[in-house]
This record gives sequence, C-alpha cells and structure tokens, in this order.
Amino acid sequence: MSMTNANKAVVLTSGGLDSAVTIALAMADGYECHCLILNYGQHHKIEIIRAQQVATNLQTASSLVLDVDLRTISRSALTTSIPIPKGRSIERIGQGIPSTYVPGRNTIFLSLALGWAESLGAATIFFGANVLDYAGYPDCRPEFVMAFNELSRLGTQQGIEGSPITVYAPLIQFTKAEIILKGIELGVPLGLTHSCYDPSPQDKPCGECDSCLLREKGFQEAGIPDPALEAR
Amino acid sequence: MSMTNANKAVVLTSGGLDSAVTIALAMADGYECHCLILNYGQHHKIEIIRAQQVATNLQTASSLVLDVDLRTISRSALTTSIPIPKGRSIERIGQGIPSTYVPGRNTIFLSLALGWAESLGAATIFFGANVLDYAGYPDCRPEFVMAFNELSRLGTQQGIEGSPITVYAPLIQFTKAEIILKGIELGVPLGLTHSCYDPSPQDKPCGECDSCLLREKGFQEAGIPDPALEAR
Repeated sequence: MSMTNANKAVVLTSGGLDSAVTIALAMADGYECHCLILNYGQHHKIEIIRAQQVATNLQTASSLVLDVDLRTISRSALTTSIPIPKGRSIERIGQGIPSTYVPGRNTIFLSLALGWAESLGAATIFFGANVLDYAGYPDCRPEFVMAFNELSRLGTQQGIEGSPITVYAPLIQFTKAEIILKGIELGVPLGLTHSCYDPSPQDKPCGECDSCLLREKGFQEAGIPDPALEAR
Repeated sequence: MSMTNANKAVVLTSGGLDSAVTIALAMADGYECHCLILNYGQHHKIEIIRAQQVATNLQTASSLVLDVDLRTISRSALTTSIPIPKGRSIERIGQGIPSTYVPGRNTIFLSLALGWAESLGAATIFFGANVLDYAGYPDCRPEFVMAFNELSRLGTQQGIEGSPITVYAPLIQFTKAEIILKGIELGVPLGLTHSCYDPSPQDKPCGECDSCLLREKGFQEAGIPDPALEAR
C-alpha cells in the first residue's frame, strides 16, 4: 500500500507568469508545493533560473531541476533552429498550432510530474495551463487534462489502490489579465517571471514573440505596468 | 499541417525479450522502425547496450538513447537502494505491485516516444508490454494503453488534425513462451537480450529476480534453452 498525503503537491514550474501564480494559488490552498522545473533544451534557458527564483521567493517546500534533452527528439522552434514567429497579431495567436509547439511536451512534463508525485506520495499535480490567452497548443486544453487524469488513474499504483494522482489546472479558464491580477493579490513576484521565447543574450525579452505579445496584452488589460520590464 | 507517414514507427526498446520481438513483429509488418532506448538511471545499465545491439542486429532504421535520470524523482528498487525482490514464487509474481515498479515509468517512456513520433511524422508507437507473464505493473495493461491513445489524440497536433499517433502493444496477450517462440520464428537474436534487474558486475543475470524467473519459466515452457545463458 502506498502512502499518500492529500496536502502534498507537485507543481510544474516554468518560470513564466502562469506557473508562478499557480504555485501561489496552491500554497494559498494549503498545499505543500514541490516544484518540478524542466531543463529540456529550450533556447530560453533563463526561464530555469527564474523558475528557481520564483520557487525560492514563494518559499515552496522544494524545487528540482530535471534534465530531459528534447532537442534530439523534438521538432520545434523552441528547441531547434526553426524560426520563432514574431510580430503576429493577437487575433492570429491561438489560431492553428504555431512552430513553437513542442511535440508531446506537456504529456512528457506531466508524466515526469506524475512519477515524482507518486514517489513523494503527493495526491495532486498543479499545472499552469490556460486556454484563453494562449498560443494554440493542444496539450493545454481541459480535455487533455481530463485524459491525463484517466491515464494517471489507470497507470499508477496510487490509481490502482483508489487514491489516484489528479492534475489540477486552476488557471485554465483565466485570461492573462486575470492571472496577473490574481498574482498581484497573492504577492507573486511577477517581476521575476520570464515569458519570452527568444530573449537577447542578456536575457532581455524580444517583445515580438507570441509569448511576449500575450504577456504585454495581459498587463495592458490588467492596467498595470509589467514589473519585469520596469526592473530591467 | 503536419506530415505523417503510416509506415514509420517508434519502438520503445529496453534490451529485453519483449521489445526485441516487438521490433521484429513491426518490421515484419513493413514498418520503418526507430528505436527509442531510455537511459533512466536503472541499475541494470547493460540493457542499454543490449538494446542497441538488438536494434543494430535487426537493421532498424535508427536507434536513439535518450537520457532522463529518474533517480532523483523515482522511488523504485530499479533506481535506488531499495532491495530487488529475489526468489519469489511464480505464483506471487504478478500479485500486487512489487518494489521494482518505477512510478510513472511507462507513461514517461510513452510520452517521450510520442514526442519523437510526432517530430518524425510517425503514425505508430510499438510498445512491448504484456500482461500474462508480467510483474504486476499497472502501466502494462490494455486499459492503460487505451487511455494513452486517448491522450495522444487530444494532446498532439497530429491528433487534432485527425491522424493521431497510436500505441500498439502487439504482445499484450502473449505468454512469455509464446513471445520466445515468435522471436525464434522471426529470427530475433534472443541471445543478445537482457532481462535481469540485478546483474553481477560482469553483467551475469542473477537468476533470482522476478524478471529472471519469468524469463526462465518462458524458456522452459517454450521447451528450448535460453541462448543468453548458453553464450555466457
């Protein structure tokens, strides 16, 4: 019989706005949060450092950087020399699947979170996906999360023994502006977060990739300046 | 629009009997096989070399060893100092989940295979799971494979575009003896395969772990000697 702890959770942590606010929401709900940060060969490696800084700032129970180099298996603008789309209109972002889609990425990340959760005896995985202001990725949708939960129920010891590990995506129906406002309410260090897919060698956001544009739109709609731009 | 090739497949390749026979079955069906071999921090690292040797011997289209060190996230006898069960009766093997279960392992492996399959434009993943002579792992069962296929359909570009990547587990209802006989029929180099969870420093099988015992029973029932033992 495995031992599970209903208050323990693994949080997929990317260094971006969504996962930072997700950590804070989980902690406000009383979860002991263990942050899983993936070093997967992304060009924007700065997000790994930012993810660690966010986890430290929010005083999570632990954080762990796991290496899984997807560059050899993934055809994506985030991991290869395929160009990152720039300057797309907000209307076009989210229509169709862009070249920044990393095949299987969230399935891979959630499965690693599942393995860690079961080893820790955690009952919950928090996942910062959202489908409103998002980049059109299939593995960010509610139906994907539901299918993963069914897989978790069937493919783990905890599932077999009647206490399956469940993925929650608390921000899935939030706009970026709502996520930002929730983050401010919860004291999330939004200035530490990083969203850009293609930062300069000095880690300055490009301001033109989908991720920068969605972030900019979010702060505009929230009616506040982006502290990450202010600080730098 | 992604390009898919119905004859291209990724095969999860472990170096054991089941995945070797799975490769041969896929090739006999006309698939161009790309073997994904996982270096996940298992104690029995010899299986990685054997997996490469099997892939080479069977003249697969390609093989790739991917590192994903699960030792930091997985509580399992295969990756930590938890003792590997020895000398269990065949009746007890498969009842309950043993300490050699690696939390989330096949979910992790299939998700990596999914990412590679989508990047290659492959329509199929072959997976050598079987539930008859098996060690009681929840992530080897038909219902787990079906749930993964639903996840693949919902979480990938190929799935969204109507040509989802499908996992096949052609041996799932085969006994170990049937797998061995099929392997001999197809010319699989069974002598290259490795099953033992706890080999000696010279990579000699222990003869007492569940995996050795299931293999021994399979060769006995097939009525032939194990060429891996003959050769060494």
